[in-house]
Amino acid sequence: MDNERLEKQIQFIEEIDKLKNIYRQNRVIHENRNENDAEHSWHLAVMAMFLSEYAKGEKLDISKVMKMVLVHDIVEIDAGDTFCYDEKGYTDKAERERKAAERIFNILPEDQAKTLWELWREFEEMKTKEAKFAACLDRFQPFLLNRKTDGHTWKKDGVNLEKVLKRNEPLKEEMPALWEYVLKKAKESVEQGILRP
Amino acid sequence: MDNERLEKQIQFIEEIDKLKNIYRQNRVIHENRNENDAEHSWHLAVMAMFLSEYAKGEKLDISKVMKMVLVHDIVEIDAGDTFCYDEKGYTDKAERERKAAERIFNILPEDQAKTLWELWREFEEMKTKEAKFAACLDRFQPFLLNRKTDGHTWKKDGVNLEKVLKRNEPLKEEMPALWEYVLKKAKESVEQGILRP
Repeated sequence: MDNERLEKQIQFIEEIDKLKNIYRQNRVIHENRNENDAEHSWHLAVMAMFLSEYAKGEKLDISKVMKMVLVHDIVEIDAGDTFCYDEKGYTDKAERERKAAERIFNILPEDQAKTLWELWREFEEMKTKEAKFAACLDRFQPFLLNRKTDGHTWKKDGVNLEKVLKRNEPLKEEMPALWEYVLKKAKESVEQGILRP
Repeated sequence: MDNERLEKQIQFIEEIDKLKNIYRQNRVIHENRNENDAEHSWHLAVMAMFLSEYAKGEKLDISKVMKMVLVHDIVEIDAGDTFCYDEKGYTDKAERERKAAERIFNILPEDQAKTLWELWREFEEMKTKEAKFAACLDRFQPFLLNRKTDGHTWKKDGVNLEKVLKRNEPLKEEMPALWEYVLKKAKESVEQGILRP
């Protein structure tokens, strides 16, 4: 057994346990607390399994989508969760996350660190069809949770219908059926008074 | 858009949010609380990505392993978490979980419910190489967490070295390098006083 290699892999597995303590802005549906990144990543991966038919165009590599969403938030262990409607937080987000990736990914053996870098970079660049699909899930999931938690995140300063639709705009091109759903349900949310017009 | 189909899929996605509130016996490493099933499932899926080289024999379908571990605990939404060292709880576990699967999986459109049944059944039967690998991860992950949380679960009644090794026995055949690791670290844990001899 190559002990050094296995030790590095186990150190990485133990390190990413911290993702269970990185809390997002939105709530889980059935408990009175915020969702953490590990739960969120799990939820996206299951959604990838059951919503792939809504991706337009060529057939997706669902395995790659699952891998992307499973690891996309690991950098937040060091960089923290940046609220998607926080314009100020976004100014140095890329740099904070790059530094985090450098520390955390490199715990792994070199070949696996490289694979993880490539996967995360692809997700961040949002150019391939898998990365675009993953980005859509990453927007659609909190949309669903907000609908079910009385618009918890939407009630913060400055979030209104326009901003929510703008955030979900990647769906328009990539998952048109889900975009229709978002449009309809966002308007319903305004009528219900859980989202500002 | 086929509204009825999409509505079913979204209802399923919202239903499984409950997995975030099903708590296991073991703790997370960096917070003073038990781990939930969603976090656990996420952790196993990432482990599948980085530990596949330790599976013996033919090449694994890692995509299938990830899918299996992502959904393997969904039945616990209704059936609850059965402590792996609770012999009494195991007597009706299969029946409780079958009923849960029937209710929860059938929220999905028929074709997807069938796919999910097959995946879960394969995991439970532990016959294919992917199911065996998934079972190994499901045992190895809490082993790592217990090591890092002062033997939290091991300090309960009746858990000792012999039981921990028995629980991890599938690794002996399927992931021999990790079995060696478990043997060594379990003995260390006894010396450290966090696991009974």
